Amino acid sequence: MAESTNMRLRLPLLCIILEVILIILFGALVEYNDDTHAKLWNANKSHSATRDDYENEFYYRYPSFQDVHVMIFVGFGFLMTFLQRYGFSSVGFNFLIAAFSLQWATLMQGFFHGMHHGKIHVGVTSMINADFCTGSVLISFGAVLGKTSPVQLLVMAIFEVTLFAVNEFILLSMLGANDAGGSMTIHTFGAYFGLMVTRVLYRPNLDKSKHRNSSVYHSDLFAMIGTIYLWMFWPSFNSAITNYGDPQHRTALNTYYSLAACTLATFAFSALVNPEGKLDMVHIQNAALAGGVAVGTAGEMMLTPFGSMIVGFLAGTISVLGYKYLTPVLESKLKIQDTCGIHNLHGMPGVLGAVVGAVTSALASPGVYGDGLQRVFADAETGKWNPQSRGGFQAISLAVTLGMALFGGLVTGFILKLPIYGAPPDTHCFEDGLYWEVKTFQYHFYKIKKTSWISSIPQN
Amino acid sequence: MAESTNMRLRLPLLCIILEVILIILFGALVEYNDDTHAKLWNANKSHSATRDDYENEFYYRYPSFQDVHVMIFVGFGFLMTFLQRYGFSSVGFNFLIAAFSLQWATLMQGFFHGMHHGKIHVGVTSMINADFCTGSVLISFGAVLGKTSPVQLLVMAIFEVTLFAVNEFILLSMLGANDAGGSMTIHTFGAYFGLMVTRVLYRPNLDKSKHRNSSVYHSDLFAMIGTIYLWMFWPSFNSAITNYGDPQHRTALNTYYSLAACTLATFAFSALVNPEGKLDMVHIQNAALAGGVAVGTAGEMMLTPFGSMIVGFLAGTISVLGYKYLTPVLESKLKIQDTCGIHNLHGMPGVLGAVVGAVTSALASPGVYGDGLQRVFADAETGKWNPQSRGGFQAISLAVTLGMALFGGLVTGFILKLPIYGAPPDTHCFEDGLYWEVKTFQYHFYKIKKTSWISSIPQN
Amino acid sequence: MAESTNMRLRLPLLCIILEVILIILFGALVEYNDDTHAKLWNANKSHSATRDDYENEFYYRYPSFQDVHVMIFVGFGFLMTFLQRYGFSSVGFNFLIAAFSLQWATLMQGFFHGMHHGKIHVGVTSMINADFCTGSVLISFGAVLGKTSPVQLLVMAIFEVTLFAVNEFILLSMLGANDAGGSMTIHTFGAYFGLMVTRVLYRPNLDKSKHRNSSVYHSDLFAMIGTIYLWMFWPSFNSAITNYGDPQHRTALNTYYSLAACTLATFAFSALVNPEGKLDMVHIQNAALAGGVAVGTAGEMMLTPFGSMIVGFLAGTISVLGYKYLTPVLESKLKIQDTCGIHNLHGMPGVLGAVVGAVTSALASPGVYGDGLQRVFADAETGKWNPQSRGGFQAISLAVTLGMALFGGLVTGFILKLPIYGAPPDTHCFEDGLYWEVKTFQYHFYKIKKTSWISSIPQN
Repeated sequence: MAESTNMRLRLPLLCIILEVILIILFGALVEYNDDTHAKLWNANKSHSATRDDYENEFYYRYPSFQDVHVMIFVGFGFLMTFLQRYGFSSVGFNFLIAAFSLQWATLMQGFFHGMHHGKIHVGVTSMINADFCTGSVLISFGAVLGKTSPVQLLVMAIFEVTLFAVNEFILLSMLGANDAGGSMTIHTFGAYFGLMVTRVLYRPNLDKSKHRNSSVYHSDLFAMIGTIYLWMFWPSFNSAITNYGDPQHRTALNTYYSLAACTLATFAFSALVNPEGKLDMVHIQNAALAGGVAVGTAGEMMLTPFGSMIVGFLAGTISVLGYKYLTPVLESKLKIQDTCGIHNLHGMPGVLGAVVGAVTSALASPGVYGDGLQRVFADAETGKWNPQSRGGFQAISLAVTLGMALFGGLVTGFILKLPIYGAPPDTHCFEDGLYWEVKTFQYHFYKIKKTSWISSIPQN
Repeated sequence: MAESTNMRLRLPLLCIILEVILIILFGALVEYNDDTHAKLWNANKSHSATRDDYENEFYYRYPSFQDVHVMIFVGFGFLMTFLQRYGFSSVGFNFLIAAFSLQWATLMQGFFHGMHHGKIHVGVTSMINADFCTGSVLISFGAVLGKTSPVQLLVMAIFEVTLFAVNEFILLSMLGANDAGGSMTIHTFGAYFGLMVTRVLYRPNLDKSKHRNSSVYHSDLFAMIGTIYLWMFWPSFNSAITNYGDPQHRTALNTYYSLAACTLATFAFSALVNPEGKLDMVHIQNAALAGGVAVGTAGEMMLTPFGSMIVGFLAGTISVLGYKYLTPVLESKLKIQDTCGIHNLHGMPGVLGAVVGAVTSALASPGVYGDGLQRVFADAETGKWNPQSRGGFQAISLAVTLGMALFGGLVTGFILKLPIYGAPPDTHCFEDGLYWEVKTFQYHFYKIKKTSWISSIPQN
Repeated sequence: MAESTNMRLRLPLLCIILEVILIILFGALVEYNDDTHAKLWNANKSHSATRDDYENEFYYRYPSFQDVHVMIFVGFGFLMTFLQRYGFSSVGFNFLIAAFSLQWATLMQGFFHGMHHGKIHVGVTSMINADFCTGSVLISFGAVLGKTSPVQLLVMAIFEVTLFAVNEFILLSMLGANDAGGSMTIHTFGAYFGLMVTRVLYRPNLDKSKHRNSSVYHSDLFAMIGTIYLWMFWPSFNSAITNYGDPQHRTALNTYYSLAACTLATFAFSALVNPEGKLDMVHIQNAALAGGVAVGTAGEMMLTPFGSMIVGFLAGTISVLGYKYLTPVLESKLKIQDTCGIHNLHGMPGVLGAVVGAVTSALASPGVYGDGLQRVFADAETGKWNPQSRGGFQAISLAVTLGMALFGGLVTGFILKLPIYGAPPDTHCFEDGLYWEVKTFQYHFYKIKKTSWISSIPQN
């Protein structure tokens, strides 16, 4: 190896310095919000009614938060365990960078989303938002999976979280965009940021590790744990921070139908693109989720179950076709080595979701939404609302997101190229043994050896 | 192979046609209900109070829905991964037919459970009901596991969902039966439907695949993920669509105690029926769940924790004894090849649950239920309530369910026997490689080979 | 083997006798509480308002209950599957003793926490408390994992649950201590009880099974399922039985930050203590959770995110250092064979949590808490409140807990030493085959054998 991958000093030093900085900044800047503060909450609620405690936002957001939390840590973590020798790193580094990112995101988002007298106020909504931002970093992680050291990943997270918060601020606060489920802010941003990073980190000799860059039987089953959790809880993800009442309810419902239709499209096209009609686990694990991504913007709108199913079906279709036909081209022509195929799961479906959101916004009307219009489109409340311009702002938001992601990924990629992070050599990518104590398989093998009748099993 | 199992045209064609039909029917028939519709929700709620949004049914049903959703996709899906070479199909086909069934069930149940001016209204309750119906299909899947192509499974789902909705309509709407947790509608129906299908599809030469019809160490652990999730969330399943307040609370509590008692019975009888006193994973994975099935009807009633525990203990006992003594007889004498033993987990405990429900209904009285009587038994509200006749209607409901299931399974079985679906040959049942791209174990094995000191491990 | 490990009579007999006793006691003593009883609930609520059903405690406690339930059955169960040949027992015995303990705990806690006219009232809160008590037993299970028969574990649970209820009664009712998340009652108690039991059961020749007392690649991934679920849902655990409103909300938030900081400390010190800077799965699986343990007492107080992060960081640090440096010493010098290292995950962090709780209590003031003071510190309501004496009572509570746990573990250990339970011989510890039907690996191996190109893979 040209360069040491020993993490003994680098990783502890970075983790400890980052956590100390986080603790100091939290000490200086972060306060409980009204719903979590003993004094403020009890001063705000009317003294007569004990019922008031039931109105704490905790009871209306926390179940959604926990579902999102499962998606971040189990969903993303296990989805990436499909590699045969990279399960520890997939779940473990996912765990590490998520734990860091949610703290850093709390600060960055708090900073941009309105300080209260110089303080950042936290509660269950900030927890959800921090998890959302973390999701974006984990999407990018999928592109560079197996080819980066944990130190590189933490450095990437520092920059990506920061830019995420800036982009989110531009979209939600300046452009007034709708993006409750994050088709743009989370998926499009995370995908194109990660694709640009992996482009800059291009390894011409990655072939040397190709025997490890694939799954085995059980690793694919572990990955399905991730897939199924993401699929099941995506309705909670898209609806977690919408307005209360009908928007939250509707978002969950639309996402549920979009995902169901997407799953049928995924199975259909997975069999269709295979010469023997065999299903490919890569498609099932990933493309079946594209329906959740693609209603991330329009899910809270009156998209209807009908519309949701069409969007989901399209998303599953382009995602499978992307895995089959586009990913190899991206690698051979554009030198984009996208380990998990995030372009197919988050990139294209994210852009689709942004476009669907823009169109659905442009078609919104008081006739359809009634008094509910202003509860979906904040502009409507101010009287300045104009559906066509709203659609336009949604489209601009997509363009801004793509620009921020590509530029941010470019800069971050070059920073990650510095030879100081202990990145794995080309011969040892996709290998847990580099950063983890890994045991071998002695005892199991011993049990096998004893079985002498093996040769008598009929051939498959 | 006599017949091609190539899915290249069959599966895509069926999936795409089905999804297009679903989308068209959803476009024509499905509308948001009052709680999910922007206009209707905001028109219904009083304009003065912003608190109203908290009263949206979303907040009182959605956490239960998510638990049910986990049972359907993770619970059923992973429970069936116990087969050594059928993990992809277990989780994957479970995923596919569930995604289809929940859409189709939304239409069928909406059609029978009352159209609103020609439209089907959807919201979180319809999502739960659709998942329930899907559960019934997945139970039947357990009987034919490993012996059917995905095309057959989709065709089975089309018929089973339809008949499920008819049976549910007869029971709940015509006979006024109580069956919140579906001992009859879901478990008894799904089990006897599936058993009849597998009887019709009887394979005299299934022995040729018997070396694959068993578990290995890790596949049993994956299956335990399914078991434990089903066990934990069963209280949510049984209580998901009861009336609000005490019935929902009580149902969860009764189910919790029934399952705990069932688990002790399962361990006791699993050790007792084994000559060496060794526990059998098949029993633990399945029989421990029978306690949830058996309180699916009476769970919402004043069964008491005492009664719940007796029912759970009985359910676990008959389930283990069924696996040990009845399943082999069903196969050898009645030619019923029941891969997962659904007769022991859903069949007998479902019938037990129906009987317990009938008896508990017949014993209900205003003295015990007070003003809560009419919140459990809808008849009581109308003044026509008579506990004995209520018990009688419950018993009739069981008979109707058994008849519908056996007849439906018979017809569906013959339809599935047509040689057009690409069913696996007798020599290749329980084998993922037929329908999935499956990788081999190269790298792991390589690691093992290096370990030269293996022979020095002391023998077990 | 000197002594038979056959469970054929012992286990069924014990399970059936215990369950029959439980059923009889439940029949005699247990009643639905006001929120689960059809008559009482409907009599209590005002007849005019149907909205009242939404105020049932079910809706404010049940989502937390389900998260806790997942931690008990999936979290603890899978965390212990790290052993290569003990996965069935880890998940299975965890399942068995949890199902027993939660029933027994309902009786014991009901008995001590106030009978209502000679009856124990049950509902969602009693379900959470029973699960909490069960958690304590499962912590102790971690110390003796692989070295005990299921009969021994059930006997241990009988005694531990009883003493847990006594200790909890002394702390919460007599000393008026705060301990919502159970740093003392659950973690400290469970850890030192288990450590004392394993000390009494010391096996000088455990070396004979050491080749099985370690993980393999996939068993570590299964264990990570347990870890991640414990980590994600710990905010629900600590907040599950706090008062409604701000305390519950704040507890979840504090736990979330503590765990995030703890995770960074864990990764940092895991790499630092390894000569090659490689991460150790044992640390990641366990130490990353110490942050949840350490805010189990102070989490509901105004600890602030800043304080929570410091506590979490300390907890992760001492936990990793404990695994690396203290566990080997405990084994060699004190003869404490602690299979899972519960001293590092629950023992030390539990004591840390108790100390942090005492200090935070002593620093509480009306200036910080406002009207919320009495909702955290029950004494404040009575006017007798004095922060310093409150801190003192918290410290006394820790001492009582340590005393009860060590004494209880000592007595229980000697009871478990009787040669009647079928404990595994020294040569067969950590081995599923003793108590379970275990299949071998035939088919997989067959697939491997076919692959002839294996030798051509480049060496790692």
